[in-house]
Amino acid sequence: MAVYTEVSDDALAAFLTAYDLGGMVAFRGIAEGVENSNYALRTTEGDFILTLYEKRVDPAELPWFLGLMDHLARQGLACPRPVAGRDGQALRPLCGRLAAITTFLPGVWPRRVRVAHCRPVGEALAALHLAGAGYAPRRANALGPSGWGPLLARCGDGADALRPGLGAELHAALGRILAAWPRELPVGHIHADLFPDNVFFLDGAVSGLIDFYFAATDIFAYDVAVCLNAWCFEADGALNVTKSRALLDGYASRRGLGAAEAAALPVLCQGAALRFLLTRLFDWVNTPPGALVTRKDPLEYLRRLRFHLSAEGPGAYGL
Amino acid sequence: MAVYTEVSDDALAAFLTAYDLGGMVAFRGIAEGVENSNYALRTTEGDFILTLYEKRVDPAELPWFLGLMDHLARQGLACPRPVAGRDGQALRPLCGRLAAITTFLPGVWPRRVRVAHCRPVGEALAALHLAGAGYAPRRANALGPSGWGPLLARCGDGADALRPGLGAELHAALGRILAAWPRELPVGHIHADLFPDNVFFLDGAVSGLIDFYFAATDIFAYDVAVCLNAWCFEADGALNVTKSRALLDGYASRRGLGAAEAAALPVLCQGAALRFLLTRLFDWVNTPPGALVTRKDPLEYLRRLRFHLSAEGPGAYGL
Repeated sequence: MAVYTEVSDDALAAFLTAYDLGGMVAFRGIAEGVENSNYALRTTEGDFILTLYEKRVDPAELPWFLGLMDHLARQGLACPRPVAGRDGQALRPLCGRLAAITTFLPGVWPRRVRVAHCRPVGEALAALHLAGAGYAPRRANALGPSGWGPLLARCGDGADALRPGLGAELHAALGRILAAWPRELPVGHIHADLFPDNVFFLDGAVSGLIDFYFAATDIFAYDVAVCLNAWCFEADGALNVTKSRALLDGYASRRGLGAAEAAALPVLCQGAALRFLLTRLFDWVNTPPGALVTRKDPLEYLRRLRFHLSAEGPGAYGL
Repeated sequence: MAVYTEVSDDALAAFLTAYDLGGMVAFRGIAEGVENSNYALRTTEGDFILTLYEKRVDPAELPWFLGLMDHLARQGLACPRPVAGRDGQALRPLCGRLAAITTFLPGVWPRRVRVAHCRPVGEALAALHLAGAGYAPRRANALGPSGWGPLLARCGDGADALRPGLGAELHAALGRILAAWPRELPVGHIHADLFPDNVFFLDGAVSGLIDFYFAATDIFAYDVAVCLNAWCFEADGALNVTKSRALLDGYASRRGLGAAEAAALPVLCQGAALRFLLTRLFDWVNTPPGALVTRKDPLEYLRRLRFHLSAEGPGAYGL
C-alpha cells in the first residue's frame, strides 16, 4: 500500500512542465508496491506511472535501475520504460524525493498462482536474462550471499524471539549454504524479486514485468531459484512440482540451463529462501506490531528453506 | 490507503462475466479512499472503478447510495455512475463483500487548497443539492446532531486522555449547539463529506465529486458548513475569509441561501466541526498508535469549533 509522499497539484503541474506529455487528465495513488510511492498518471498523451523513490532506495543507484529498464524495454521486454524529459533526463526531484515517469503496462497480477501462470513466468524470466546482455554497467547484489551473514547478525535475538532455536538453525543453514555456494555459474542482470505482484498477465500471457529496484548482476540460475520459491509453493508450505516443472520448462524454452546450473538448483533455492526469510525477519524485528507496513511471516520461508535443504538434487523440482 | 480485500484474478474474471464490459485490460488497487477497497479497472470498453464495500458500510444502505449516484449522474452531475450488469443490478458479491462498478472520472484532487478551488466547489455543491431533488428515497443522517451525543459518550475518557478538560468542553459545546440547532431550514440530499480528496479538478474546473457513502437527507446549509470547515481553514487553524466568501459566492450563484440559512451558518459550522472532531476522536480512541489506518488529529477541529463558537454571525464567513 504505497503512497508515502503526497504530491500537490501545483508541484505535479510544475514537474510535468519538464516533459512533452501533453495536458493532465487524471492522477491517482496506487495501492501497490511496498518501497516507493506510485501514482497512475494520465495525460492527453496516454497513461504513465509516476514513482517517487522513498528512503529505502539509494539515489545513487537509481540511474542504474532506470538504465536497465530502458535497455530491457528497447530490447522488446514488456517492462516499464523511463520517460525522458525535454532535457533528456528521466530522473528529477519532486516533493523532496527523486522521481521518474515510466510507461504504463496493461495486465493484472495473479493474486492466486495457478499452474498455467508458471510456464509463462519462466519464459519471461529467461527473456529478461537474455535481453539484459547488452547493458554494460553492473550492480553487485547487496542481498546476495555476502549480505546474508550481516543481515542475520543485525536481527540479533529476533530469530529466537520469533521461534526458540531459530537463530541456531539459521546460522547452521547459512554456513552450509555459503560453503556450497557455486562460483562458476553464468552471470548477468537478474530481477531478483520476481514475485507474483511484479508480473502482469493478460489473456494468459505475461504482459509486464515491474519493480526492478532489487535487480543486480548475479547468477542467472539464482533468479530461477527466487522464482521457484515465489511461484511454486502451496499455502501449506509444500512444493507443487507441477508448477516448478512448468516454470523450469518455460525458462529452458528460451535459455537452456546448463548441467552445472541444474545441479546447483537446491543450494540456490536454499539461498533464495534464506534471503527472503532474513529480510522478512529483519522487518519483523524492526517493525512494531500493527504498523503501517504489513509484516510478512518469515516462517513461511523457513518451511521452504527446510524443503530445499532436504532436496537431493534438481529432480526434487521436476527437472 | 485502501485495499483491504484482495481480489483474485479468477474471482474478478467470474465477476465480470455478469457485465457487458468487454475484455479485461488492467486492474490496480487505488491508494485513496479510507472506508472501502477501490480498484482502477480498465476493460476494452473503457475505465471504471471497482469498489468492495468493507465493514463500516451497512449493506442495507448500499442501494440508497448507488441509487442516489445514479440519479445525480443522470441529472448531469459529474459523479460516479453505477454500472448495471446484464441482470440490471449494480450490486453483487465479490470475495465475501458486496461490490459495484462505477464510471471513472478524470481529474486530480487538490492536495493543497487554493482560493481558486473554493468558488467551483461551492458551485458544485449547489449543483449536487439541486440535482438530488427528484430522488425520492430518504436517508437519515446517522452522523447528524442526534448522533453526536452517543458518539461523545462512546469516546469515554478518550477526550480527557487526549487533552485534559476536553471532555467538559465538548459536552458544553454539544449542549449549546443542540439547543440552537435550526429546525426549519430547507432539506434535501447532501454529500456530508465533501472534503478536498472527494473533489477532482481539471483545468481549474470541478471534473468529479466522489465518495457518496456519508450522503444523507439533511439540511442543505449544513453541507455548506461542512465545506467551509473542509476547504477554508489554513494550516494554522485560522479561517481564510477570502476562501469562505468564494465558496459561499459560488454556492449562491447556483442556489441562493435564504436569510434563515445564512443566519444559522455559525451553529451549522459548529455542528460540522463537532461532527468531524468526534469521529476523529472516536477513531483516535479506538485505533492503536501506528495501526494500518492513519489517525487524523481531532484537535484540528477543536480550533475550528472554537472559532465557530465565537462567530457572531454569517459575517464571520464573509457573507
